[in-house]
Amino acid sequence: MSLPRRAAAEFLGSAFLLATVIGSGIMAARLAGGNGALALLCNTIPTGAILVVLILIFGPVSGAHFNPVVTLAFVLRRALPLGIAPVYLVAQLAGAVVGAFAAHLMFELPLLQVASTVRVGAGQWLAEAIAAFGLLLTIFGCRAAARDAVPYAVGLYITAAYWFTASTSFANPAVTVARALSDTFAGIAPAGVAAFIVAQCAGALAATLLATWLWPRPRAGDAPPALTPT
Amino acid sequence: MSLPRRAAAEFLGSAFLLATVIGSGIMAARLAGGNGALALLCNTIPTGAILVVLILIFGPVSGAHFNPVVTLAFVLRRALPLGIAPVYLVAQLAGAVVGAFAAHLMFELPLLQVASTVRVGAGQWLAEAIAAFGLLLTIFGCRAAARDAVPYAVGLYITAAYWFTASTSFANPAVTVARALSDTFAGIAPAGVAAFIVAQCAGALAATLLATWLWPRPRAGDAPPALTPT
Amino acid sequence: MSLPRRAAAEFLGSAFLLATVIGSGIMAARLAGGNGALALLCNTIPTGAILVVLILIFGPVSGAHFNPVVTLAFVLRRALPLGIAPVYLVAQLAGAVVGAFAAHLMFELPLLQVASTVRVGAGQWLAEAIAAFGLLLTIFGCRAAARDAVPYAVGLYITAAYWFTASTSFANPAVTVARALSDTFAGIAPAGVAAFIVAQCAGALAATLLATWLWPRPRAGDAPPALTPT
Amino acid sequence: MSLPRRAAAEFLGSAFLLATVIGSGIMAARLAGGNGALALLCNTIPTGAILVVLILIFGPVSGAHFNPVVTLAFVLRRALPLGIAPVYLVAQLAGAVVGAFAAHLMFELPLLQVASTVRVGAGQWLAEAIAAFGLLLTIFGCRAAARDAVPYAVGLYITAAYWFTASTSFANPAVTVARALSDTFAGIAPAGVAAFIVAQCAGALAATLLATWLWPRPRAGDAPPALTPT
Repeated sequence: MSLPRRAAAEFLGSAFLLATVIGSGIMAARLAGGNGALALLCNTIPTGAILVVLILIFGPVSGAHFNPVVTLAFVLRRALPLGIAPVYLVAQLAGAVVGAFAAHLMFELPLLQVASTVRVGAGQWLAEAIAAFGLLLTIFGCRAAARDAVPYAVGLYITAAYWFTASTSFANPAVTVARALSDTFAGIAPAGVAAFIVAQCAGALAATLLATWLWPRPRAGDAPPALTPT
Repeated sequence: MSLPRRAAAEFLGSAFLLATVIGSGIMAARLAGGNGALALLCNTIPTGAILVVLILIFGPVSGAHFNPVVTLAFVLRRALPLGIAPVYLVAQLAGAVVGAFAAHLMFELPLLQVASTVRVGAGQWLAEAIAAFGLLLTIFGCRAAARDAVPYAVGLYITAAYWFTASTSFANPAVTVARALSDTFAGIAPAGVAAFIVAQCAGALAATLLATWLWPRPRAGDAPPALTPT
Repeated sequence: MSLPRRAAAEFLGSAFLLATVIGSGIMAARLAGGNGALALLCNTIPTGAILVVLILIFGPVSGAHFNPVVTLAFVLRRALPLGIAPVYLVAQLAGAVVGAFAAHLMFELPLLQVASTVRVGAGQWLAEAIAAFGLLLTIFGCRAAARDAVPYAVGLYITAAYWFTASTSFANPAVTVARALSDTFAGIAPAGVAAFIVAQCAGALAATLLATWLWPRPRAGDAPPALTPT
Repeated sequence: MSLPRRAAAEFLGSAFLLATVIGSGIMAARLAGGNGALALLCNTIPTGAILVVLILIFGPVSGAHFNPVVTLAFVLRRALPLGIAPVYLVAQLAGAVVGAFAAHLMFELPLLQVASTVRVGAGQWLAEAIAAFGLLLTIFGCRAAARDAVPYAVGLYITAAYWFTASTSFANPAVTVARALSDTFAGIAPAGVAAFIVAQCAGALAATLLATWLWPRPRAGDAPPALTPT
């Protein structure tokens, strides 16, 4: 695939992802009558669903990263040339911001916003590290033996991680930056962004190293692994 | 497949789709005790679920469009003969109206109704354009490299789009017309119909052009694309 | 597969299906604080989920009917010998009743109950006819071209039909009888049972005839149909 | 796969499973405004989702048991050497406890807790026996004829069993012990643990024996079973 197509796929996927995270958060908060669990559930289900779709349709074009730590992990695993990474990161960040703007426009809110929801503290940071750790294990684990299941696995992982992490699982630096630009249900006050990104990078790095050991690349002549051995 | 079978599939699929959109909306609104998020969630889950089923069973017969902008996009892509399109459009519209009527009969409401829920404004129209844009990208993207996933992808896309678009994602002119004939949870006052359809056509057209570039048809001799490359 | 194994599969599947329909109804109603939509949602999701599982595991043994109208439709289509049908029907009915009893025992309710929820009227009967009509179309349609998707399609169909039909989609005579024996959320007062079963048979018969025309059996030498043609 | 890799997979899978069960329970209970059905739904969906992911990614490494009664059932079926079982059991128990601790740390609760939710009585014990019985039927049934569906089937089974069993389906001794160490939504007071484990073992043993008869191993030369026969 040509680089412009790849960049377009990363841009579009990140834009739809953020439009969904922020847009469904706005819709859910407006309608939920103050019940936080109901609002988060109505934010979770669309996010998990759109991730499956976006990875299905953009996976064959760009790999469907939509996430700087995924791109960097692929570079580390030598599965993406280092020279291409900056194109991916710019497309992801631009797409995420445009997606946030699109959500604001659809719901007739001010285009430019700064989030005010404070998300800081050791529990939140541990949560982001674990969220990114699990996301990268999901991706590398599926790629090793159930490659066609990657879209479903990532959607389901994020569905779970919205709830089992104390931070509702941002797990993505581009998502984190774009959510700082939305003073809505999904927002994060800018003061909390840097620590979230550091935690995400730490979790992703740990998972990338662990994955190299857990799921070694098959050597030529190896039988393919069964989906459910033993 | 013979044309009568194709028309029957488009009719039946559109009818079950509208019976579900309108019927589940009635049931949800009756039971939700005034909580709008809960009502919309109980409208979303059945709609996403039935779409998967209808595309699985009618896809092999007619392609499972159930949507005039999908049919027109296939004509544009030269994937459906122009001469057949009118049969599809009539079957879709007739099926959608019959499905709305069936919902009214099941819930013992007046057969003939005119919706009163006003859905107008720039945010709504942008939402419909984005909803149709994403739907067509979903269809063409899946057809390019994960053809068997089309039913699941469309069901999941609509599940997400109910929440991330400000309009709850009609994304379908036949659905829009039929929903104008139901003064229930899913209704749209007739004055808003034309603008919704214009927005849907604009979004669908943009996606069809973009898809031609993003997912070029494989030439003879090309290897098939992997689901998750790189 | 031997007949005792088939009967055991029909018995176990029907028992787990009813334990889920009735058990999740009891749990949902106890916890939902009087919100009917929440209770029905928490009854719907487990029912759709267990159907996928039961059809996956018992499908290869008995065909996973769990439903007299499905068994009779298969006899009509000459896909099941008439002589075997009585064994299926007895196993289904016995399993359904045992499943209802198991739910009562788990929730420490009286074993023997008679339902008091009145479910009668033209809307309800039309709903049951449509529910069974759609269920049989789902089964025959998937078997024609996406056979491996049958478990998922049936689970998703029932998920939708709980909401789009006014009767919450019993669509199964064995289920109807067993639900008459439970004075809980999922119950149906015995006076309504016969009309429900008549409506289910009518809908199922119409779908079986329609399916014969819509999805003709491939003749030897035909290419297999694509999942998403055109 | 080497034994250290297998142990790591069982440890990690059990840890993520418990982090999800307990973490999502904490999040759900905090946000649900006292509505028990909503809290349980927001505990159910993440648990079902993460199970699919964990079985997809760790299945090819260790078989993805995460559950002592599954490991013992595989030993009984001679599908796992007896000598390896202790390694699995230790990894599962250690992982489960670490997962509970991780949830406490993320939500900034005391690390060490003792649960106070009393879960005793004949209905609860019958529920645990049925829950484990169904889980093992799900695993062995899918392995017999729809092996690639195991991850989805187990996730969907637990989604249903949270609601149709009166105990919310622990169905796993390692999970039961770890939940005794969390005085949160998912906790179980220690006095109830032993009886739960006895009931789980009884149900699992019954299912293992039944599965041997229901799904006999194919002999060399047999045609593979179809997913949906007849």
